[in-house]
Amino acid sequence: MEITTNKEKFTNALYLESGRILEPYEIAYETYGTLNEDKSNVIVVCHALTGSHHAAGRYDGDRKTGWWDDMIGDGKPIDTSRYFVICTNVIGSCFGSTGPTSLMYPVSRPYRLKFPVITVKDMVRAQRSLFSRLGIEHVHAVIGGSMGGMQALHFAIDFPGFADKIIALATTHATSPWAIAFNKVSIEAIRNDPAFEDGNYDLDKMKEQGLTGSAIGRMGGHISFLSPHSMERKFGRDYVAQDGLFELFGRFEVERYLDYNGYNFPKWFDPLSFLYIAKAINIYDLSRGHDGLEEALKKITADLHLISFESDMLFFPWEMKHIADTMTRIGQGARCTYDNIDSDYGHDAFLVEVDKFRHHIEAVLA
Amino acid sequence: MEITTNKEKFTNALYLESGRILEPYEIAYETYGTLNEDKSNVIVVCHALTGSHHAAGRYDGDRKTGWWDDMIGDGKPIDTSRYFVICTNVIGSCFGSTGPTSLMYPVSRPYRLKFPVITVKDMVRAQRSLFSRLGIEHVHAVIGGSMGGMQALHFAIDFPGFADKIIALATTHATSPWAIAFNKVSIEAIRNDPAFEDGNYDLDKMKEQGLTGSAIGRMGGHISFLSPHSMERKFGRDYVAQDGLFELFGRFEVERYLDYNGYNFPKWFDPLSFLYIAKAINIYDLSRGHDGLEEALKKITADLHLISFESDMLFFPWEMKHIADTMTRIGQGARCTYDNIDSDYGHDAFLVEVDKFRHHIEAVLA
Repeated sequence: MEITTNKEKFTNALYLESGRILEPYEIAYETYGTLNEDKSNVIVVCHALTGSHHAAGRYDGDRKTGWWDDMIGDGKPIDTSRYFVICTNVIGSCFGSTGPTSLMYPVSRPYRLKFPVITVKDMVRAQRSLFSRLGIEHVHAVIGGSMGGMQALHFAIDFPGFADKIIALATTHATSPWAIAFNKVSIEAIRNDPAFEDGNYDLDKMKEQGLTGSAIGRMGGHISFLSPHSMERKFGRDYVAQDGLFELFGRFEVERYLDYNGYNFPKWFDPLSFLYIAKAINIYDLSRGHDGLEEALKKITADLHLISFESDMLFFPWEMKHIADTMTRIGQGARCTYDNIDSDYGHDAFLVEVDKFRHHIEAVLA
Repeated sequence: MEITTNKEKFTNALYLESGRILEPYEIAYETYGTLNEDKSNVIVVCHALTGSHHAAGRYDGDRKTGWWDDMIGDGKPIDTSRYFVICTNVIGSCFGSTGPTSLMYPVSRPYRLKFPVITVKDMVRAQRSLFSRLGIEHVHAVIGGSMGGMQALHFAIDFPGFADKIIALATTHATSPWAIAFNKVSIEAIRNDPAFEDGNYDLDKMKEQGLTGSAIGRMGGHISFLSPHSMERKFGRDYVAQDGLFELFGRFEVERYLDYNGYNFPKWFDPLSFLYIAKAINIYDLSRGHDGLEEALKKITADLHLISFESDMLFFPWEMKHIADTMTRIGQGARCTYDNIDSDYGHDAFLVEVDKFRHHIEAVLA
């Protein structure tokens, strides 16, 4: 599998849904496989909140592969021996595309809290500009899970002719108050941490020292990524061997897991980017700008494939089913499939239980 | 309904499960109704994590009634025209019973982090001492929800002859890693807040100023008390009218609810007490000290009535069902009933949807 990592700079303005503009802006992206001559073999992969454009393969010296390496590669469900796969880092993120830690032209200071609020629709419009720059005006499929699924659905509605197939996993049509509440814990924990300094923290030191507030929010996030059953299987009531059961701060293994993943989080994911992307997720609503969800979904001309996971505790199966039911009600049923995958892993199933739904992806792409 | 509020002081030692002792200790309690001559009409009500002995009625000048006022009173399911109801504040709490903010005899300084870790079993043993002091060696029923249900189950196992009937609602046989994870968010948020000062904060100022860490943890707690459906019904995606959709810190109504309840929480519930009671809940496991859950449940001689709520996101219905199934497997099925209430309110259903299960309570107590 051929992998390239690139960055494109745009000097024109990106007009944001908020009415503000982003100018200039950059988009970091990776590609896997080879673009064919008539550019007809493109698949766009969209990442989730804390994901990046590094979706597959392994960088030299890295322990971990890209976040969807089980899915993308030669002979894998998104088969790079046939398809040319592109994954871009969303605007607002911290892995190369323009976000709140980027320099604010022309002053050469980071935006920080002066960065404009962006939406999932904006993320998609920015990606569309990149594809035009690359001469790609039409793709075989757009696919993504969680916030990646939100992007896939926006591609379907905002650029109806762009993709033949849209595959959205573990996502929703509009973020529920339940999911917003989890983000709220993170937002409050970050902005109230004195070391956040109203967004003026030292960006480099953050990567060494972390930020307690961001860690605490992430612990809440991990609850929503798992499920009662997956936690039971992973940890049960195992207690950390060197801790005392009757020590006030003695820990169960699940607490050690949350400590590890929580306190590491701000060292690899910037807290300002977290705030902006969480906001984009909170205000995500496919019906905004339309007379309701039905009017939005009427615009879809691609084949729409929806996949939910039975135990998803962040975006519940009935949210995906609501999209499918609405498609049927508006006479779009023939172009829509909906599958609920029997998994007890929770929201993260779309990342870690690829074997449970790979046949759906293979069937759609075939 | 006659209401009394009292406090009893014990100068003997309370031997704790940890091996430590509490000496002296006090227990605050309320009673409702009238004790009959042969003391045969007693019902014990047990409160949840942040509850208190003020279970019913209204104090002069208070806006709110006790936490289970829908349940306890003349003509109510726990009918105070027939029964003499006692509710005690658990040790570790901050409403009058001995806890981490109590003075540590003989030094006259609050215990703070020197308070011993207590367990739900300890809470129950302390209550049992109070009942002996009051000349009550046998009661008609013990009833409680959430941590109150844990206490009810401990009464059943640790004091088999004490109650004729045990009613446990919205609880479990051993706290799951899922529930521990929610407590973890609170524990880390509290202990890492600089204003917590390793437990040495000014106790009076706390009631005015609050503690951000405790507030943030409580927001996570509120997620676990509700359900996706109850949040949808309560808040939907309503946005706070005076906030801007594209303001980074603009809020949905669900966020305003969490702000309000979160930031108020440390003003009425002490953070040290929270840490100790959360710890007691985390290490709660009916099987501890027995060769497994079966051996523990074999000790029960009371009639056991278990009630779960379909949408409870903290203690899931299958956890209660597991107790009922185990009772059946060990030949105790005849003395156990299990009902799962069709509610989409979440864990708090045991507090707010009394009409959905009052007939069960009335039938058991009749």
